[in-house]
Amino acid sequence: MKLYDLELSGNCYKVRLFLALIEQPYTLVPVDFLAGAHKEAPLSDMNPFCEIPILTDGDLTLRDSQAILVYLARKYGGEAWLPTEPSAMAQVMEWLMMAENEIARGQNDARLHDKFGYELDHGLAVQKAERVLKLLEDRLEGREWLVHDRPTIADIACFPYVALGHEGRIPVGDHPNVQGWIDRIKDLPRFVGMPEL
Amino acid sequence: MKLYDLELSGNCYKVRLFLALIEQPYTLVPVDFLAGAHKEAPLSDMNPFCEIPILTDGDLTLRDSQAILVYLARKYGGEAWLPTEPSAMAQVMEWLMMAENEIARGQNDARLHDKFGYELDHGLAVQKAERVLKLLEDRLEGREWLVHDRPTIADIACFPYVALGHEGRIPVGDHPNVQGWIDRIKDLPRFVGMPEL
Repeated sequence: MKLYDLELSGNCYKVRLFLALIEQPYTLVPVDFLAGAHKEAPLSDMNPFCEIPILTDGDLTLRDSQAILVYLARKYGGEAWLPTEPSAMAQVMEWLMMAENEIARGQNDARLHDKFGYELDHGLAVQKAERVLKLLEDRLEGREWLVHDRPTIADIACFPYVALGHEGRIPVGDHPNVQGWIDRIKDLPRFVGMPEL
Repeated sequence: MKLYDLELSGNCYKVRLFLALIEQPYTLVPVDFLAGAHKEAPLSDMNPFCEIPILTDGDLTLRDSQAILVYLARKYGGEAWLPTEPSAMAQVMEWLMMAENEIARGQNDARLHDKFGYELDHGLAVQKAERVLKLLEDRLEGREWLVHDRPTIADIACFPYVALGHEGRIPVGDHPNVQGWIDRIKDLPRFVGMPEL
């Protein structure tokens, strides 16, 4: 497998983290993001969305960090990380969708603005990110993990940008359940970090 | 099964459409959205995100239209709509994520602004929606469906807001591949429509 990667991207990081957790070897291919390499061939042919991460495995080329987590869990991770029973799978999906939508519009956008200078409405991102923190805090009341009483790719998908929130001026702050959940993820065997985390 | 529904919601509609396609009976529970019923108990307990659709099936309660499609496909739809083989499943996921992210920020936001008076940046939504149309037009060059040479929940997830684009001033316009794809979905056996579509 090859992972086309940017070290500072939380979406790339979540793939690196999961590959470490499930002990899958891969080749890291650093992408010169500042030079716009993701917008030019060959990367723009591999992913017309012109984003990273991109994962290749044999003939397969995949975009989108959540879709990549689904692939890796199904192929290499086993039922624990992503169960195939319909109800159990759908409950994991609910939180993959939160990573793709609410957290992307919240914590991720706020960090893109502050850390990378993206022109977007930081106030709106903060508002959405604060809602994310409240939803997670409530969800994690009396729970160790987002679903199924064990870590799944739901946790891996939601964790990075929430834990990097301070880089967009949305620290986890007074949300003890969220902080406990972050600490539990960091305590997982074979956990790897990234800068600022 | 019960579907907590708003007729004019494209996210609710995609669930109604899929239930019709796979011939699953269910009870429709209309939600008084204008009165804010989704923000109050019992709905806000069933879905703390305070959004619809919500699907219940026995003891299971699910939020998020994409997660609901995954559930219905796994439980009632069979392998054709959502294959479980890792690579095939992940390729469907890529487009569920486009529905959850790019189309939500594009066509869906533009329509929320124009049709329901949401205060958001319509110009930004148009920009994102036009990118969605280009990505879909390119993807559908020489293809009938988004993945796997047959209809999957990827098509069902992406279709509604793209086809409703004119309600947010982003008509499909001069995108013949997208228009052909919309027409093929409308030709599926047991297809049901919604207002303005």
